Amino acid sequence: MTASPHSKTNPGNYFEDFHLDQEIVHSTPRTVTEGDQALYIALYGSRFPLHCSAEMAMDLGYDDMPLEDMLVFHMVFGKSVPDISLNAIANLGYAECVFGVPVYAGDTLRATSRVIGLKENSNRKAGVVYVRTTGVNQDDEVVVDYVRWVMVRKRHPGDDSTPLNPPEIPELTDVVPAADLIVPDGLDLNDYDPELVGQEHLWEDYAVGERIDHHGGMTLEDAEHQMATRLYQNTAKVHFNHMFQAQGPMGRRLIYGGHIISLARAMSFNGMANGFRVAAINAGAHVNGCFAGDTIQAWTEVLDKMELPDRADVGALRLRTVAVKDRECGDFPYKDEDGRYQDGVVLDLDYTVLMPRRV
Amino acid sequence: MTASPHSKTNPGNYFEDFHLDQEIVHSTPRTVTEGDQALYIALYGSRFPLHCSAEMAMDLGYDDMPLEDMLVFHMVFGKSVPDISLNAIANLGYAECVFGVPVYAGDTLRATSRVIGLKENSNRKAGVVYVRTTGVNQDDEVVVDYVRWVMVRKRHPGDDSTPLNPPEIPELTDVVPAADLIVPDGLDLNDYDPELVGQEHLWEDYAVGERIDHHGGMTLEDAEHQMATRLYQNTAKVHFNHMFQAQGPMGRRLIYGGHIISLARAMSFNGMANGFRVAAINAGAHVNGCFAGDTIQAWTEVLDKMELPDRADVGALRLRTVAVKDRECGDFPYKDEDGRYQDGVVLDLDYTVLMPRRV
Amino acid sequence: MTASPHSKTNPGNYFEDFHLDQEIVHSTPRTVTEGDQALYIALYGSRFPLHCSAEMAMDLGYDDMPLEDMLVFHMVFGKSVPDISLNAIANLGYAECVFGVPVYAGDTLRATSRVIGLKENSNRKAGVVYVRTTGVNQDDEVVVDYVRWVMVRKRHPGDDSTPLNPPEIPELTDVVPAADLIVPDGLDLNDYDPELVGQEHLWEDYAVGERIDHHGGMTLEDAEHQMATRLYQNTAKVHFNHMFQAQGPMGRRLIYGGHIISLARAMSFNGMANGFRVAAINAGAHVNGCFAGDTIQAWTEVLDKMELPDRADVGALRLRTVAVKDRECGDFPYKDEDGRYQDGVVLDLDYTVLMPRRV
Repeated sequence: MTASPHSKTNPGNYFEDFHLDQEIVHSTPRTVTEGDQALYIALYGSRFPLHCSAEMAMDLGYDDMPLEDMLVFHMVFGKSVPDISLNAIANLGYAECVFGVPVYAGDTLRATSRVIGLKENSNRKAGVVYVRTTGVNQDDEVVVDYVRWVMVRKRHPGDDSTPLNPPEIPELTDVVPAADLIVPDGLDLNDYDPELVGQEHLWEDYAVGERIDHHGGMTLEDAEHQMATRLYQNTAKVHFNHMFQAQGPMGRRLIYGGHIISLARAMSFNGMANGFRVAAINAGAHVNGCFAGDTIQAWTEVLDKMELPDRADVGALRLRTVAVKDRECGDFPYKDEDGRYQDGVVLDLDYTVLMPRRV
Repeated sequence: MTASPHSKTNPGNYFEDFHLDQEIVHSTPRTVTEGDQALYIALYGSRFPLHCSAEMAMDLGYDDMPLEDMLVFHMVFGKSVPDISLNAIANLGYAECVFGVPVYAGDTLRATSRVIGLKENSNRKAGVVYVRTTGVNQDDEVVVDYVRWVMVRKRHPGDDSTPLNPPEIPELTDVVPAADLIVPDGLDLNDYDPELVGQEHLWEDYAVGERIDHHGGMTLEDAEHQMATRLYQNTAKVHFNHMFQAQGPMGRRLIYGGHIISLARAMSFNGMANGFRVAAINAGAHVNGCFAGDTIQAWTEVLDKMELPDRADVGALRLRTVAVKDRECGDFPYKDEDGRYQDGVVLDLDYTVLMPRRV
Repeated sequence: MTASPHSKTNPGNYFEDFHLDQEIVHSTPRTVTEGDQALYIALYGSRFPLHCSAEMAMDLGYDDMPLEDMLVFHMVFGKSVPDISLNAIANLGYAECVFGVPVYAGDTLRATSRVIGLKENSNRKAGVVYVRTTGVNQDDEVVVDYVRWVMVRKRHPGDDSTPLNPPEIPELTDVVPAADLIVPDGLDLNDYDPELVGQEHLWEDYAVGERIDHHGGMTLEDAEHQMATRLYQNTAKVHFNHMFQAQGPMGRRLIYGGHIISLARAMSFNGMANGFRVAAINAGAHVNGCFAGDTIQAWTEVLDKMELPDRADVGALRLRTVAVKDRECGDFPYKDEDGRYQDGVVLDLDYTVLMPRRV
């Protein structure tokens, strides 16, 4: 017991602190409330009616109005930050993200992660950590489960006193198969009323290759992304500390990538309004950083249409939603011929939504 | 089924899309929560105790703590935006707005509109659409009902291939009569305790012609009005998209007029603290646009005092609340002798509140 | 009954309006909700699990998830502002602040103050008012009770027509004794699981004199502190009115000191995560004003360790948390050798937290 400075402050894990199959229990269980959902609407303007109307949700077989899927994702992600990515250089990707049971106000969420891959950089300054993070409710039912990989600083950058370990890279699927998508228990869309949603297009009406400009456009504010990111209890310094950031190459606070995902998802209502549930995230990349003052717009391409086992009332659409900043989406900006992202692209998200079928 | 761009995005209605007696069901029913009310207080600092204290509300005969009247108005108004005013040039006025049954956390609100008037501009570029919008709860009880008129762009501006239709302008009353004001069922103000409210002045203490400077003063922030306007699920582009606005004559995001109404109402607590319920909006004009950085202040004139049928415990006050920006209200700024609004006036709101009487 | 301006607007009390033993009932009882707690997390990023997890709170003997202690303090403080400090020049200090029964969503809070001291300045322009403010719930149980003193303007500054009254200065204790700290009824920490909190250090692990740099760092935004301060229904003009402030020596909106207290408390999680409850504030000073754009960091020194009567499962730590702006805390900035606060120090808070003991 000494009184030395820093002795009790969590400095976060460095690359050397991780080992394969390591299990990490993340702190601070969180009881989610109607207050969280109200803030989510205030932050993103989401209008997907399942998350706005308890009446409609219960009519379709839910126990109550479920929280937004991406709100659940951010809450679980946030819990993992102090242990996984406090010393991260970059959040590199997501895969195999499956949303589980619905989350209702009053549920208490906890999260754990398992290290499933490690790859030290050849410069010995950092390494990539692959984790599978699982969020559960008070009954230990999985609410979301996903893999992410992140480049983490070494505690002793450049230390080459030990030989470089061979990389351990997990095998990851490109897309969550239809059979693994979770349709909430009790859901019955036979009486789904698109008029409540204000858009008539259902699963049958979308074609693979179809592209939709969602119009809209939201200008980012520091007060907004900070409130969002704190709501998720995500503690990454880059989002909050202007003094620190001003000294770095960005010169200002970097916005949490999940904030952009939620904005893009909310914007996608205009054109995909009946895509009532995010069932999976197949892959995702934050192509460029976003900052206060940037204006975000988004468009979506239908990548695939999937039937679901034993369901005639609901199908799945695999989508790519691309978010851009400070430009329009009418020309569907994405990649150049050489495969490089075009100027202004900030998010490339490959995910799967559930949508009612015509019955 | 083609994969053309824009095919599924709602571009909003243009003037040509409206016809007299058209009924429009607005999308996305909304279950309101305590989270919405907490955000409302955080956004405006409202202190009207009926909306702050469940104890006081129930002591006066309410079933629970009702949501703020103007929060209900904004929620219903927001629902109408995607159908009515996405292509609006200007929101021109309100009339005959009556607040119905109280709204409690847990209620689910829906809205419909009926077109009650149409007047194409002589330049054939746009026209005025008059709608009566009705918000109801899950039991189909009316929570608010109002007329607004708005100038909407034509899809084909300047098209004069058809003759100009004669204008259809609805007859609107100047003021909601006392007999049409709705006193919530069960309300009993015989035991009303002004000490809980911190102000002793009741209905008898106000005189027609009396003017009250509310002091206070709130400086507007983009993050605040955006969060408010998204909370109401109002999708009008002008409030959110700086990139778009920077190219137009305003050069920046325009603040939703209802945000100013709510600020002025909250400020009016200082001098009108016992005006516990907004019962009607007789007329309203957004005289000038407001922008981040403007400082809002407000003053009120008592226009009329009305007794209510069969009620000795509660009366009505017809008020004009004027909000200004970047100036004080001590000299009660309003109109010049020639009837033009003075510099700095942003809101001219003629409305009616209920207030306890001495018993 | 005249129609004179200002007649009904509350101008706040001036120094001349206070007299010893005066009792003031503050207006607007407030039913606190889960929405308030969600906003609190969004504003400060607090992670103390008792206020995040209903499961954990109930496992430890609470009836439900209690609201943050400092949220309760701010709500009660806010109620006192219109009566006590609307005409304040400076909030000078706090003492003898004891937190009482836990506050749960659904409770309704009221507040009263008693004048316990008065000291007119020798320049006859203002004077110091000492009040004891008490917040209670709907069952009249005390939720927080504290003394603050504040310099208040005179209505007639410089008036020396009456002789200067001798100062009446209350005797205040330097520290709330352990016997006066309130441990919530039913609390039982024998099964406390630090793994849920993510930090293993308990009461035994802290040494008097130990200093902890909490890292972190939050940059302040006008939209955030305004939303916070309105949530607390604190009406002090200096926090909201840029037009007014621009004319004064600060030139911009001053941030409510309590906003900094809450940020520092939230940051202290990193190093003091098991300090689950603020039991008392012994003393506090807002050393410098804070403004939008400032970046706040904090560090803590353990001032004392106290056993609690008849409790083997929980002890108390008396702490000094110092918040600074626009500088790091690694060198524990506080006072110079001559006792003057070092540059950048903004808050000096002496308070007591409860922490589980090893059992």
